[in-house]
Amino acid sequence: MWRCTPADMPKKRQNASLVLRDRSNGATLFRWLYDEIRTAIVDGRLSPGSRLPSTRSVASQYRVARGTVVAAFDQLAAEGYVESTVGNGTFVRRMLPESLLGARSVGRASLSARGRLLAENPFPYLCANRSVETFRLDRPALDAFPTRLWSRIAARGLRSSAPRLLAHGEILGFRPLREAVAAHVGLTRGVKCTADQVVITTGTQQSLDLITRLVLDPGDRVWVEDPGYAGATWLLRASGAEVIGVPVDAEGIDSDAGRRRCRSAKFAYVTPGCQFPLGMGMSLRRRLALLQWAREEGAWIFEDDYDSQLRFSGRPLAALQSLDTGGCVIYSNTFNKMLFPALRLGFLVVPPTLVDAVAAARSVLDRFPSVPDQATLADFISEGYLDQHMRRMCELYTARFDALVRCAQRRIKDVMELSPVGAGLQIVGWLAKGIDENEACRRAAERGVDSVALSKFAIDRSMPPALVLGVACADIRAIRSGVERLGHTLREL
Amino acid sequence: MWRCTPADMPKKRQNASLVLRDRSNGATLFRWLYDEIRTAIVDGRLSPGSRLPSTRSVASQYRVARGTVVAAFDQLAAEGYVESTVGNGTFVRRMLPESLLGARSVGRASLSARGRLLAENPFPYLCANRSVETFRLDRPALDAFPTRLWSRIAARGLRSSAPRLLAHGEILGFRPLREAVAAHVGLTRGVKCTADQVVITTGTQQSLDLITRLVLDPGDRVWVEDPGYAGATWLLRASGAEVIGVPVDAEGIDSDAGRRRCRSAKFAYVTPGCQFPLGMGMSLRRRLALLQWAREEGAWIFEDDYDSQLRFSGRPLAALQSLDTGGCVIYSNTFNKMLFPALRLGFLVVPPTLVDAVAAARSVLDRFPSVPDQATLADFISEGYLDQHMRRMCELYTARFDALVRCAQRRIKDVMELSPVGAGLQIVGWLAKGIDENEACRRAAERGVDSVALSKFAIDRSMPPALVLGVACADIRAIRSGVERLGHTLREL
Repeated sequence: MWRCTPADMPKKRQNASLVLRDRSNGATLFRWLYDEIRTAIVDGRLSPGSRLPSTRSVASQYRVARGTVVAAFDQLAAEGYVESTVGNGTFVRRMLPESLLGARSVGRASLSARGRLLAENPFPYLCANRSVETFRLDRPALDAFPTRLWSRIAARGLRSSAPRLLAHGEILGFRPLREAVAAHVGLTRGVKCTADQVVITTGTQQSLDLITRLVLDPGDRVWVEDPGYAGATWLLRASGAEVIGVPVDAEGIDSDAGRRRCRSAKFAYVTPGCQFPLGMGMSLRRRLALLQWAREEGAWIFEDDYDSQLRFSGRPLAALQSLDTGGCVIYSNTFNKMLFPALRLGFLVVPPTLVDAVAAARSVLDRFPSVPDQATLADFISEGYLDQHMRRMCELYTARFDALVRCAQRRIKDVMELSPVGAGLQIVGWLAKGIDENEACRRAAERGVDSVALSKFAIDRSMPPALVLGVACADIRAIRSGVERLGHTLREL
Repeated sequence: MWRCTPADMPKKRQNASLVLRDRSNGATLFRWLYDEIRTAIVDGRLSPGSRLPSTRSVASQYRVARGTVVAAFDQLAAEGYVESTVGNGTFVRRMLPESLLGARSVGRASLSARGRLLAENPFPYLCANRSVETFRLDRPALDAFPTRLWSRIAARGLRSSAPRLLAHGEILGFRPLREAVAAHVGLTRGVKCTADQVVITTGTQQSLDLITRLVLDPGDRVWVEDPGYAGATWLLRASGAEVIGVPVDAEGIDSDAGRRRCRSAKFAYVTPGCQFPLGMGMSLRRRLALLQWAREEGAWIFEDDYDSQLRFSGRPLAALQSLDTGGCVIYSNTFNKMLFPALRLGFLVVPPTLVDAVAAARSVLDRFPSVPDQATLADFISEGYLDQHMRRMCELYTARFDALVRCAQRRIKDVMELSPVGAGLQIVGWLAKGIDENEACRRAAERGVDSVALSKFAIDRSMPPALVLGVACADIRAIRSGVERLGHTLREL
């Protein structure tokens, strides 16, 4: 006896042709069948109302167990793609809106105004293909990092403290790390703080982004050292701030010039310990003048203290934060440069008045960095390995720095003169008259020598032609060879 | 023969008294002396113009080598705090603005408008002290994670691939991880993508924050499932969006209701695979209707696919993303729930049209997550351990889930009835009439039982009283004991 077919179905319908693509590696037979049929329906190759071949014929055509085909059909039915009537077969459901399923339309959804700012201000040095290595600006001496020691501390931590270390972390950071950091910056940088003011982040960019979102609105004006750290300039602009370049000289940022350009700025990004990219420290006079301005205007100062522990002559100045009596200095530093860039751990020391706001922001934003990594770093610091590593790096970088200066003095003085600087992992090479810095960069890269034109760090100023070179990542041999190649390049121009 | 003193100095001046606090552990003698004297100057205890004791007398008073004292004085002179005249001694400099150094003023710098939004919307469940563990909502089974295996893979990676793994990472994520993720979500969730569309983040919050900044402006209206994931609601509000609750029923979010409430929203946050907190999947009909709305309005859909691989009955539905022909679905998932919360690795699959914008944003924001961690995860996935772990977790959670449902059915049916759900790591327990859910939560916590009132996840809806319980982190014994304690608590109310 024949059953009736559902009222809306014609009595005779052609079986849909079912041509399946080859199974990709790793897909189960079930998943493959299910995906292929579903895709055929979504793409419109199997049209609504059409009948699928029987499970038996699919099984025999594709040499699959019939149970697997039945399971795939069942799943498609459960999801509403097909429907079965006993004895009549399986049909693609008619309720599917064909216009949607068949169409290959282009999305109309677009970026927001603030999204366009972000999308249109990519940081140029990271996005470019930077395969050239000698004198690379953003890289410490990776070959000198004690990887095995780090691995051992990490494994020991997980062994002894899992599952505790696997659970959710604290919003402001792993407590033992915050304590180790507070002690470390108190001793080495004179930063006045308790562990409660320390916020662990993934590095300087995240730290600056977090603070920018908390204290700046789009359109607010901010001081940035000119020339200055492009990573900060780009982030501030991408966040909607109006960047005001304030010139630096041998004593650092000149607040008087800043006041003349824009007295009422809300924020200043500065590198008092070791100016980026010029390398000098900010004088006490200028520090006090900057603090005075911030106090008068109710402005925030973001002190990026990056590289300031690496000093090749004299002792480092204590952090600007240590002079702040008004609670307006936010201190920032990063382990991505002290240890290695792939680590993604940095920190802020914020005034006590900002702690709750930072905690609230982090609770909805990215919450906290990897807890096992934070625990490894906490042990690395509290067991004295950070101090040891920094001492070793200081020696190593001093040797590399001296080698570069001596070598450049001997071999390429006619085309480039290096700045005498006291700190930092980069050095500025002033080019002889008539040499175009952008062309010099481009040609040097062709010879495997990395550099950034000083003008890339300028905001409003016009600087004399110069290249900024990274001192840290090349060994003595690479430095000598790099200087030779740089000399050849520059003399050709 | 006596030299003249500088003109502005009186002939006789009292030596400043120099009382130094004890040296803290770890400070060098130099650092201690320098810090103490500097602090005394900054605090105003050593006033401008006053004379410091001689280096000889400080050395003898504090039993320090004279060379150390000389070094500290030199450093203070170099920084401009003091000045020396030969034969006359060392003086605190007069140029220090006393008003600044002596004052202990309170900062006037304040939060921005968008900063206040962030500061005033802390995520309540993370900020609270969550020491109570049984039925904790946000925690997977940490004791079942293969910590030793993970450690071994991590150490092997660093051993074989440092220093490459220590250098800067790629902006969109470690390439082998992006490839492993693309293959994994293609197979397990039917997500259609290439590795180029995969963006590695630190988890769902960062993913949602990144997308929010790219596609939403303050004031834009967004759909969120009601009840829905509070972490999303809070983040969207803190970012300035206006959250429109769109009711869910047994088939998931109801776009028709959404259209009536606010047709022109720009964005929808949804959990189609496993609705949070109610646990059901979104029906095909509703999926197609949602896509249709997004296409008509040019809206984005953020698909949070969290927990959807953990299914206790039936097979998981393929991701909503697999139905998207308009390029408007952004797929999100996190390893912080699949593996462990402290890991901080999650990912997005974005439409090809968004890839460049995301890369630009990340280049100025936090750049990339820890490369060694990404490399470990890439190996963990590509060597089959993720699949293995998810299978084991599925079994374990099924057992825990069944135990909770059976135990609750047997012991506390009079006061609480559990929802039958098919997926996810949480379950909703509907309370008997007259029981106040907030009071129930509070009292249960006193007995060591964690729960969140369902109303905490509601946006505009008034839901019947219920508690949301986490199923994953308690073992069978803890489940039984938790159910008993919950029963006692509820019967007392």
